[in-house]
Amino acid sequence: MRDENETARLEAFSDSVFAIAITLLVLEIKVPTHEEAAAYGLAKSLAALWPSYLAFLTSFITILVIWVHHHLIFLLIRRNDHLFLYLNGLLLLFVTFVPFPTALLAEYLLHPDAKVAANIYTATFLAISIAYDMLWKHATQNLLSANASNDKSNEAIHITKQYRFGPPLYFAVFLVSFFSEAWSISICLMLALFFALRDRPTKK
Amino acid sequence: MRDENETARLEAFSDSVFAIAITLLVLEIKVPTHEEAAAYGLAKSLAALWPSYLAFLTSFITILVIWVHHHLIFLLIRRNDHLFLYLNGLLLLFVTFVPFPTALLAEYLLHPDAKVAANIYTATFLAISIAYDMLWKHATQNLLSANASNDKSNEAIHITKQYRFGPPLYFAVFLVSFFSEAWSISICLMLALFFALRDRPTKK
Amino acid sequence: MRDENETARLEAFSDSVFAIAITLLVLEIKVPTHEEAAAYGLAKSLAALWPSYLAFLTSFITILVIWVHHHLIFLLIRRNDHLFLYLNGLLLLFVTFVPFPTALLAEYLLHPDAKVAANIYTATFLAISIAYDMLWKHATQNLLSANASNDKSNEAIHITKQYRFGPPLYFAVFLVSFFSEAWSISICLMLALFFALRDRPTKK
Amino acid sequence: MRDENETARLEAFSDSVFAIAITLLVLEIKVPTHEEAAAYGLAKSLAALWPSYLAFLTSFITILVIWVHHHLIFLLIRRNDHLFLYLNGLLLLFVTFVPFPTALLAEYLLHPDAKVAANIYTATFLAISIAYDMLWKHATQNLLSANASNDKSNEAIHITKQYRFGPPLYFAVFLVSFFSEAWSISICLMLALFFALRDRPTKK
Repeated sequence: MRDENETARLEAFSDSVFAIAITLLVLEIKVPTHEEAAAYGLAKSLAALWPSYLAFLTSFITILVIWVHHHLIFLLIRRNDHLFLYLNGLLLLFVTFVPFPTALLAEYLLHPDAKVAANIYTATFLAISIAYDMLWKHATQNLLSANASNDKSNEAIHITKQYRFGPPLYFAVFLVSFFSEAWSISICLMLALFFALRDRPTKK
Repeated sequence: MRDENETARLEAFSDSVFAIAITLLVLEIKVPTHEEAAAYGLAKSLAALWPSYLAFLTSFITILVIWVHHHLIFLLIRRNDHLFLYLNGLLLLFVTFVPFPTALLAEYLLHPDAKVAANIYTATFLAISIAYDMLWKHATQNLLSANASNDKSNEAIHITKQYRFGPPLYFAVFLVSFFSEAWSISICLMLALFFALRDRPTKK
Repeated sequence: MRDENETARLEAFSDSVFAIAITLLVLEIKVPTHEEAAAYGLAKSLAALWPSYLAFLTSFITILVIWVHHHLIFLLIRRNDHLFLYLNGLLLLFVTFVPFPTALLAEYLLHPDAKVAANIYTATFLAISIAYDMLWKHATQNLLSANASNDKSNEAIHITKQYRFGPPLYFAVFLVSFFSEAWSISICLMLALFFALRDRPTKK
Repeated sequence: MRDENETARLEAFSDSVFAIAITLLVLEIKVPTHEEAAAYGLAKSLAALWPSYLAFLTSFITILVIWVHHHLIFLLIRRNDHLFLYLNGLLLLFVTFVPFPTALLAEYLLHPDAKVAANIYTATFLAISIAYDMLWKHATQNLLSANASNDKSNEAIHITKQYRFGPPLYFAVFLVSFFSEAWSISICLMLALFFALRDRPTKK
């Protein structure tokens, strides 16, 4: 029971961090100034914010997918150790960082230096996928719950396994960001949607 | 037990997102600058912020009502599936977005372009009500708890059903926002209060 | 069990709102600009921020005390109804609003219009104490847990009762704020400390 | 059971506060302005933000370590009293304050007045370590769980004991900050990493 409590609290803390990071994203969408609205009209000023909406949407879906997968890891384990606590901390470090590259991308997507913003944006997701992979490897090798052998668990393992393609995929996206910021962001969004849709189990 | 844990964590995550979105609303009320206070006095400058208070209040009550209804769905179900996770994610996407149209409305309610702000404000609530409806339909068709037949559940079903008028009602409000920003916001506030008051069960 | 879950989720949501409101307070303390630091030195510029620290501290302790008392109500009850949900929502409305009057007070405490800021600051706490009182009255009259008769409960009732002096006390502070902003804020801080220290039970 | 619930809610509230404080840190990293990007290029402007990254990282790891230790205290106890509630409140007061000195340090680390920023940054961590020590002393002397005698608990006690070197160590760092801001911040980061790594138990 103590062990469950321990995992429960770690889940609660992680959930809060994911929830706050995902909700802070909206603060990066800046209301147009009255000068902009006077010059172009409010509707056009809002339309010109599309890089903000795109960055918000991509980051939101990516964090949501990571949260769902994080949630699946915790279904499989009922224990933790100190290394797990700090690997989880490493994952949370990169997750809490996401609002910064999101704001950066929103601000600079239409700017000559957009590639730099795309580099940092994709590098953040690469770092998240590596931290997630380390957490998952440590968990499956050391912390599997004794009763982790039923169908549900197998399904979770199956689904989560797919996410282990994360690091090479996000490394590829990172490389793409040196050639085209537009392609790299589009692939980020598609990857998040792909992971979300692939999760749908074949049957229940 | 595993299933309950699963739902519990989804509830905890959603609660955090609702709680953060509802609390971030206050950041959109801007303290008057010293220039404004010097020109008009602090009391008058604060009174001139009434669109901010109105937007804060309307968004707060609306999010609170959605949270209460979200809470009622989870009383009825004790399982979830991946589609439910992502429909819930879609709902949370629109909920976390609310601080932006709230700030936009507060800033532009007294501006010639107020209708544009009202369009986006009411469109956000329309999107929330549609996402809620999809979540509710999927839950009642696939995820009803086996013991969802007692009085309490019937009551919850009864109350929640009313909210299914949400999409047509908010679509009407969205249409109204093209003719009068004042009326559309007033109706938004009244709808939220109406849903809150209708919820009071006839007897316990 | 269902009822407990229901209360548990309401507590979790409320806790998150309290936690976020109390943590957002720090955003109102603004780092001195480089111009200020150049003109007066960083140490002096930071010292000049004392109204921000005072407002932060007073609001922090007041929210903490309300949270502790909110927590005591929930020890006594294990059920809720819809009126309770919305009275709790009213309390949370005023709690989430606190960062605004806190920022206002920090900005205008040394300004000729300081009394206006103190009026709104103390009025917010008056509103909180009234909403708390309504919540408490409704809870004790309708929702007392069947097993709310042991020593712990009596103690909680005893402690919480004291807080019912809240509305008249905060109304007095509100009146004082029309004569002296300094006294009204000092009394706010002392009241919060008094409620915190009085809570210490005579024996365990 | 009531006692466990009581502790559970205190943990949940504290977890939320830790989670929000750790996630708000990122708001202090400011996206470079278009003027800066035009003058130096975006890459150079981002590189010039290294004090922000350093302050973010140091504060993040320190709060994470405190959270882990806070978590260990709660593994040992299953009761609380009012003094514990308010000592915990004192700890949370300093934890919620952390984003301010973090922003201050990020803004002034390369400024002639950097020592003032380092004083306040290290003083905040000193205050946290003292509040933590008071909480821990009160807990071990009054609130130890009856079943706090198994191996896990001994391990937790062992690990947590190390953290009691916190106050003298952070006092030393505070003194160092009067001579060298660079050394004091480096030691802060190293201390946090040291506490994180020392936590790894010798065996499971």
